[in-house]
Amino acid sequence: MKKIGVILSGCGVYDGTEIHEAVLTLLSLDKAQAEAVCFAPDISQRQVINHLTGEVMENETRNVLVESARIARGSIRNLKEIDAMILDGLIIPGGYGAAKNLSDYAFTGASCEVIPEVADAITRFRQYGKPIGFLCIAPVIAAKLFGPEGVEVTIGSDPQTAADIAAMGAKHLDASVEEIIVSHGAKIVSTPAYMLGPSINDIAKGIDKLVAKVLELA
Amino acid sequence: MKKIGVILSGCGVYDGTEIHEAVLTLLSLDKAQAEAVCFAPDISQRQVINHLTGEVMENETRNVLVESARIARGSIRNLKEIDAMILDGLIIPGGYGAAKNLSDYAFTGASCEVIPEVADAITRFRQYGKPIGFLCIAPVIAAKLFGPEGVEVTIGSDPQTAADIAAMGAKHLDASVEEIIVSHGAKIVSTPAYMLGPSINDIAKGIDKLVAKVLELA
Repeated sequence: MKKIGVILSGCGVYDGTEIHEAVLTLLSLDKAQAEAVCFAPDISQRQVINHLTGEVMENETRNVLVESARIARGSIRNLKEIDAMILDGLIIPGGYGAAKNLSDYAFTGASCEVIPEVADAITRFRQYGKPIGFLCIAPVIAAKLFGPEGVEVTIGSDPQTAADIAAMGAKHLDASVEEIIVSHGAKIVSTPAYMLGPSINDIAKGIDKLVAKVLELA
Repeated sequence: MKKIGVILSGCGVYDGTEIHEAVLTLLSLDKAQAEAVCFAPDISQRQVINHLTGEVMENETRNVLVESARIARGSIRNLKEIDAMILDGLIIPGGYGAAKNLSDYAFTGASCEVIPEVADAITRFRQYGKPIGFLCIAPVIAAKLFGPEGVEVTIGSDPQTAADIAAMGAKHLDASVEEIIVSHGAKIVSTPAYMLGPSINDIAKGIDKLVAKVLELA
C-alpha cells in the first residue's frame, strides 16, 4: 500500500486548507487503496477569517496544526515529523492557507517566501525523486522552490498569478479544472481546483487525475 | 434542478459537522445535478474541542453558523431563513454537532431535546411530505421528533445509541456502512457513515445511496 503525505494548512478556504480539496484528496487516495498521512506545521495562522462575512477576526488566534486536525479527524502529525524516506509521495491541497501559512504569497506575491519547515519537507521529496502534487494556489510554492529549475505548473488561467509564477522562474501552463499538468522531466503535478471551480464535482475530476498521477509516479 | 437543504452544525467531527460527511454530501448532490443550499443555526457552539488532543478548549467560543461557513465556502444562510416550501428535501450530516448543537443528545441521551429552530425546520419538511436524510448520529434527531410515529432509522449497530433510539419510540434497524434505511411509509432515510466507518471511501458509498434516495423521493 502506497503512503502519501498530505500537508494541510488550517481548516477553511480563506485562512487555511480548502476543505473540499483536502477531503476529495483523501477520498481519492482511499479509493485507490493508498494511505493518506496528514501533516501540518505547528504554527499560528497568519489570520482568522470569518467565512460568513469574509472579514478578519482581529482578536482571534488559531493554530494551523490544531485546526488542520479537524479535516483529518484527529489523525494528523506535526510537519516536523514528516519523513520523505518512508513516504511514497506528497500532496498539498490549496486554500489561502497555502498562501498565508505555508508561504506568504498572499501578502507578498512573487517575492514570497515558503516557511522553512515546509520548504525543507517538499525539497526532500524532490531530492528523493518522489512525486509531489500541488492543488489550486499551492503551485506557487512549487514555483518558488523549483522555479529556477524551470518546472511547469498550472493554477488554471488567472493572469496575475500566472505572471507571478513566471517571475519566480517557473513556467505556467494554462489548464482547465479537469486537467493536470505534469512538469516535463520532473515529478511535479498540478491542477487548478477552486482557482477555476466552479463546482465541487468539477474540481473532483482534476483532483482524481492528480492523485492517480502521483500514485503512478510513486 | 432539485434543491436540497443541508443543515450544518459547525466544522469538525468533535464539536460540529463531520467534515467528510458534509463534503461527500455536497459532492454527491452536485454529481446528481442537484443544488445544495446550506444552512446553520446562528448560535454558540456548546463546546470547542481541540481536534488534535480531544480536549475541550475552555476559553474559546465559536458560532455554529460562522464555523459551518468554512465547509460551505461562505455560501450558507441562517437556518431561520429556511423555507421547506421551496426546497425539495433536506439532509443533515453527522458529527457531534448534531448531538451537541442541533440537539443535546451527547449530554442527555434518550431524554434529549432538539433545539426549536431545528425541530421546526425538520418538522415542516415532514409535514410537506418532503424527504429528509440523516447521517451518522443525526438519526437520533429523527427518533426524537418522529419516534412516536414509529419511524425506522439506523445509526449502524452501536447498542447504546440503538437502545436510546428505541427509548424515544423509534425503531432502530442495524445497517452496514454501505447501506441506507428508508423508513416504511415515511420519507426518512438514514445511513451509518462514521458511526461505522472506518474509511472515507466506505462512508462515501452509503452517502451516495442516501443522496440518490432523497432525490428519488423528492
